Formats: sequence, structure tokens, C-alpha cells
Amino acid sequence: MSENMKPSLPIYLDYNATTPVAPEVLTAMLPYLGEHFGNPSSSHPYGIRARQAVMQAREAVAALIGTQPDEVIFTGSATEANNLALLGAARVAGPGKRHLVVSAIEHPAVMAPAEYMKTLGWEVTTLPVDGYGRVDPEDLRRALRPDTFMVSVMHANNEIGTVQPVAELAEIARSHGCLIHTDAAQSAGKIALDVDALGVDLLTLAGHKFYAPKGVGALYVRHGTPLAGILHGAEQEHGLRPGTENVPHIVALGAAATLADGRLNEAVMRMKAARDALHTQLAEGVPELVLNGHSEFRLPNTLHVSFPHVTGRTLLAEAAAVVAASVGSACHSEGDTVSGVLAAMGIDTARAAGAIRLSTGWATTLQDIERAADALIVAWRRLAHQ
Amino acid sequence: MSENMKPSLPIYLDYNATTPVAPEVLTAMLPYLGEHFGNPSSSHPYGIRARQAVMQAREAVAALIGTQPDEVIFTGSATEANNLALLGAARVAGPGKRHLVVSAIEHPAVMAPAEYMKTLGWEVTTLPVDGYGRVDPEDLRRALRPDTFMVSVMHANNEIGTVQPVAELAEIARSHGCLIHTDAAQSAGKIALDVDALGVDLLTLAGHKFYAPKGVGALYVRHGTPLAGILHGAEQEHGLRPGTENVPHIVALGAAATLADGRLNEAVMRMKAARDALHTQLAEGVPELVLNGHSEFRLPNTLHVSFPHVTGRTLLAEAAAVVAASVGSACHSEGDTVSGVLAAMGIDTARAAGAIRLSTGWATTLQDIERAADALIVAWRRLAHQ
Repeated sequence: MSENMKPSLPIYLDYNATTPVAPEVLTAMLPYLGEHFGNPSSSHPYGIRARQAVMQAREAVAALIGTQPDEVIFTGSATEANNLALLGAARVAGPGKRHLVVSAIEHPAVMAPAEYMKTLGWEVTTLPVDGYGRVDPEDLRRALRPDTFMVSVMHANNEIGTVQPVAELAEIARSHGCLIHTDAAQSAGKIALDVDALGVDLLTLAGHKFYAPKGVGALYVRHGTPLAGILHGAEQEHGLRPGTENVPHIVALGAAATLADGRLNEAVMRMKAARDALHTQLAEGVPELVLNGHSEFRLPNTLHVSFPHVTGRTLLAEAAAVVAASVGSACHSEGDTVSGVLAAMGIDTARAAGAIRLSTGWATTLQDIERAADALIVAWRRLAHQ
Repeated sequence: MSENMKPSLPIYLDYNATTPVAPEVLTAMLPYLGEHFGNPSSSHPYGIRARQAVMQAREAVAALIGTQPDEVIFTGSATEANNLALLGAARVAGPGKRHLVVSAIEHPAVMAPAEYMKTLGWEVTTLPVDGYGRVDPEDLRRALRPDTFMVSVMHANNEIGTVQPVAELAEIARSHGCLIHTDAAQSAGKIALDVDALGVDLLTLAGHKFYAPKGVGALYVRHGTPLAGILHGAEQEHGLRPGTENVPHIVALGAAATLADGRLNEAVMRMKAARDALHTQLAEGVPELVLNGHSEFRLPNTLHVSFPHVTGRTLLAEAAAVVAASVGSACHSEGDTVSGVLAAMGIDTARAAGAIRLSTGWATTLQDIERAADALIVAWRRLAHQ
């Protein structure tokens, strides 16, 4: 097949699964895959250069979330950051503290460490969510116990995009003397992040959700938060995350943070305009289309909708030549079970089966949206009228 | 300062701390920082492309160590791979198994998880090494107990380069019914690696020691080896290492494995010729120079020598304009304590204080060596005759 005949890739509407690396981010990191290859722990100029780059990236990430550089720990992923937050804090929790509170719609990177803690004798309370995927702060108030050591509620849900009232939850948790962690993997670059406004002790970031590469994350750790490492080795990252630093990816995370910070308002406007245009066009073509998640407290780029009379999986397969999206989180894209998030929201099986997640990004154009919506509507009509 | 006036960087003789990324490796990974940015868990073409790339990298790494792709688990570092080997196997060790054996000169990435296991009630036996840094297999035979679950002895030491008799140790461990793990972070690209010839159940690789970037490692897990994950989340890497895959770095690790495999003999010859020329020239200029480590069972690129009447740190500082090397492992480059490796070998304080580690790489030329040796000899004369 000649180059001209190469079929073009479908329109990417799966930015919640992962973003591309922004050109500015790639430019920033490339020298650290090239001449500036030193180990940040080395004392010579190669090492010093790498160490300075890590330091600058730490400053940039700190600036994005409104904190100090020494409160930022780089990790290999958001999953690792979530594990560090939960298991690392559990390791040094005070005597008699054996209770953890999470929401019912956490990502597996929080849910799985919570499940693991149960096997170690911890008790875990799961807060319900309403039909829009929101936690009721009053439910948290009721769930707290004298032995509660931590509350972990995600900032924004990866599937439906619902944004939680983290500041309210944090106030309740902290007035009760508990730590509060939030997994903000999906919110960086989409919502302004300020750890003081949120009032959290621990916050997780994922590089590959805001235009840095896959394979890097960060954990914000408020000064004074008791935390032990969960990996053991040399003294990198204040002894909290041993292993030679992933310098190029850390530099990339810093560059992505600066970029996200600088263009937040414009990016949000663009992603939201595209998302809303998609919703409008789909709703016109599919009268019974139902929105899942909250209409207001929602990521500006996320559209999670249920199509009637079809399954999301067959719909996406039918439109696959034009649209690349998913039926839920990428982590579960191969399974056929109903999303735990939708189940927790009380969404019935038929509506859950007809759901797809469409998520826009910085590069999504209104032209993309028009083509994608057309393709989805045509695919739906074909399937629904079979 | 104009570009022409930029001071040139010193000659890099610290390849054991980290290697640069090979141009072929960078070329292989770049598309995955560009157009092929998908999440390997996504079902659409972006995801499929990323998934295939991870699969190919797994095949390449498997080929390097003589095994099957499904026995390779990608991690964020060798430190994480070592933690997974020790702590992950400990989590599912049989009843009554509470004893671990390590050597006295393991990297902190093995020593620290072993120390952590002690706090959980495990007993750890530390095998001594001889004056050349080698473990005596008879010492292992004597150390094994009915409750021993694992032996972990590194393949080659990062500081002195001594290569352990891993195949002999493995035979003893396995005939005793124990698991055997080896940290081969320093040996890939320098010694042929064959997990069956070595007879190990678990083997650790580090990308940034053989021309892949920092921030990626792998753990070989022999079929049937009981192992649990130490991070908890989604189902990536057979459920043993959750978190979205670092696709570009994994692709890089695969490319580096192919490269290391293909050019091993030539690379070893070059690195060894450079290393030996350096030793010869230094020994001529510094008559009392002493080699640390084994003269025969040693990495082909590593020269660990003690200079008389000076400290390694002041010597490297004096020669810093010309030579970039280290007094020991990069992880400890800032401390002033005597290396635990040299202490375990019974090397006295004065000799330990005068030690530096010089390590050559694929790009080291004999011209580099001549300049570096001259600079070190001149610096030593200046300091020793003060």
C-alpha cells in the first residue's frame, strides 16, 4: 500500500485515556534523552545538569498546584502515587487507626490498594454517590470514626467526569483529624488546582493525562503529613521514592505543568466548546440520548452518554473508522462487565450497556466534532433499526 | 559567552552510574512520544499500536535474556523490580518461610527491602564476600535453612564490578527449594545474560545502565514462580505491575536489548580495551595504585582503583575539568562514609578513601582514555606532593 493509500486514523476522542505529548513538552524533554543524560545523583557536571532539571520541574509542578517544590514527589505513575498515598500513610498511621474512607467510584489505583488494606486488617468504608456520581459530604460526616486515618476521594471521575466537592470533604476530614487525599489524575489541565483551596494533604497527578508522556506521576505531600515510602532503596525523592529519577519524563511533567497552567482558560474554553457541540449534535440525531454524570460539576472535556437500543461497544465498533473513543476507562476496555462507576450511580443495565465516553482535547476541532457526531449518529441509526 | 567559548564537558567515565540513550534507541522510541501516543489498554487503533509496540519490546527483552515474552514484567526502575522480586515473592511465600539470604554487597535496592522485611519479622542472613568482593558458594550452602524462601545475590557489583558465581549459587538455592533472584542491573550489555544458564527464577534489568532512558526496568519471572504485585491498581503486566505502561521507555528498553544483544562481543572488546588501557596508564603513573575487585571475574568496563596518599573525592575534584567519574555508586555520591561494599571486602579506611570508580562505555575512545589518565595522574601528583 502506498503512503497515499494509508487509511487515515480515526478522530481521537479519548483524551481521558491518554493525551498525546505536547510539542512544547517534547522539545523540553528531548535534551534529557540526548546530551544531558547524567544521573541526578552524580556530583559531576552531567549529574548537576540533570539534578537542576529535576529541581526546575519540581518548581513547575509545585506552581501548577499552588505549593512548594519540596512538597512534590515524582513517581512512575499516578497508580504508584495513589499507592504511596494510601499504603505509605497507612504504614505510619497512629496507633488504633485502622479505618479508611473512599468513594464508590474511585479508580482501581485507589480501590485496589484499599482492597489490599482490607486483607491486612484495615476496615474500609465506601461512600455512595448520587445519580450524577457525586458524594454527599453528609455521608462522609457520618462515615468518620475515631479510628479513621484517611479519606480518599477523587477530584474528577475518569469515566463520567463528575467533579467531587473535595474542598467540603477536606474540611470535614481535617476537622476530624483525618488525612485527606485526592486523585487528581483527570483534573490537571482541565480544572484549576490549588492544594490550599482544596484543603488536601495529598494529591495525585498523572503526566499522560495532561500532555506529558506515560510513565510519570507526582504526589503532593503537604508539609508535616506522616508518610513512609512503599518502595525501598536509595535516598531519591526525600527517601520517599527510591530509584534513579526518570529525568526526561520529569522534565516533561514540569513543562506540561507550565503549559497547563498558562493555557488553562483558553484550553478549557476550547475543549468545552467542542464537547458541548458534540453533545448538541448527538442529542439532535439521537432524541433519546441520555447524559451520564453531572451537567454542571463535570470536567469540561468529558461527555459520557448512553445511546438507546444499542450497546456502546457495538456502536463504537460500527463507527470505528471515524471515531476513536471508549466505553469506559481504558483500564477496562477489554471487559464486558458493567462499569462499577455506572453501577454505583444506580444506572440500570440497559442504559449502562449503551454508554460511551467521549473526551475532547486541546487539538480537537469543531470540524472533528461534526464528522465524529455524524459518524456516531449514522452508526447508531444503522444498529438501532436493524 | 559565545557558543565557541562554551567550556567542553569532561570525559564521561561514569557509565556505571548511567549511560546516554543510544541514537538507535532514541529513534525507536520517538514515534511513541509523537503520533503513536495511544494507551495500550484502549481498543481503538491508537491503543492497538501502543499495545503492539509493548509486545514487541517484551519479545526483544526476552530475547536478550534467553526467555519467553510472558516472563518479562516491565517496571518503572530496577529498584522497583528488585522490590517486586523480594517483597512480591515474600507476600506469597509458603507457610513457615521467613528467611531471606542476600550478599553483603547488594545495591540499596535489594538491601533496603531486605531491611524492611526485618521490620516485618523476617530474618535475613547476609553472606560475606572475600577480598575481591566474591561470595563463596559454600557460605550459601551453610546459610540455607528449612525456612529460607529466597536467595538474592547480584550478578555484578555496581561499584567494583565483581561478577558473582550466580549459576553455582542458583544450583545450591534451587536444590534446596529456594527461589533465586539476581539483580543484573549492571550486567546487561556487558555480560551475556541467559536466565537458564544462570538458573535464576527472578532477574532484574535497568534500562539506563544499557543505553535506554532512566525510568524503566524489567523483572524476569520464571514460569511458575509464586509472585504477588506490590502496587495495586488495574490489570497491566499480568496484574503484577498496574499503571498505564510507559510506552516510549518500554519501546526504548526493547531497542536497547536488541542493540546490546547484537553488539555485545564488539562492545565488550572496546569497553575492555579502553578500561585496560586506562589501568595500564594509571598504574605506570601511580606506582602504588591498587585494584579493587576481582581481576578476572569483573565487568569488562569497570576499573575501581585506590590512589595512595589522597582521597578519591579530592582527586576527582582536582581532575574535574577533564574527567567525570565517581567515588562509588551514584546513589552515594554526596555522602562521606566509606562504601559498604569496600568495608565488606575488608578494605582498610585509607585505601577505601583513596578509591575511585572509572567505568567505560560504548563511546569511550582510547584518546579519551589517554587524556583522562593524564589528568588523573597530574592531579594525583599535585595532591600527593602537597
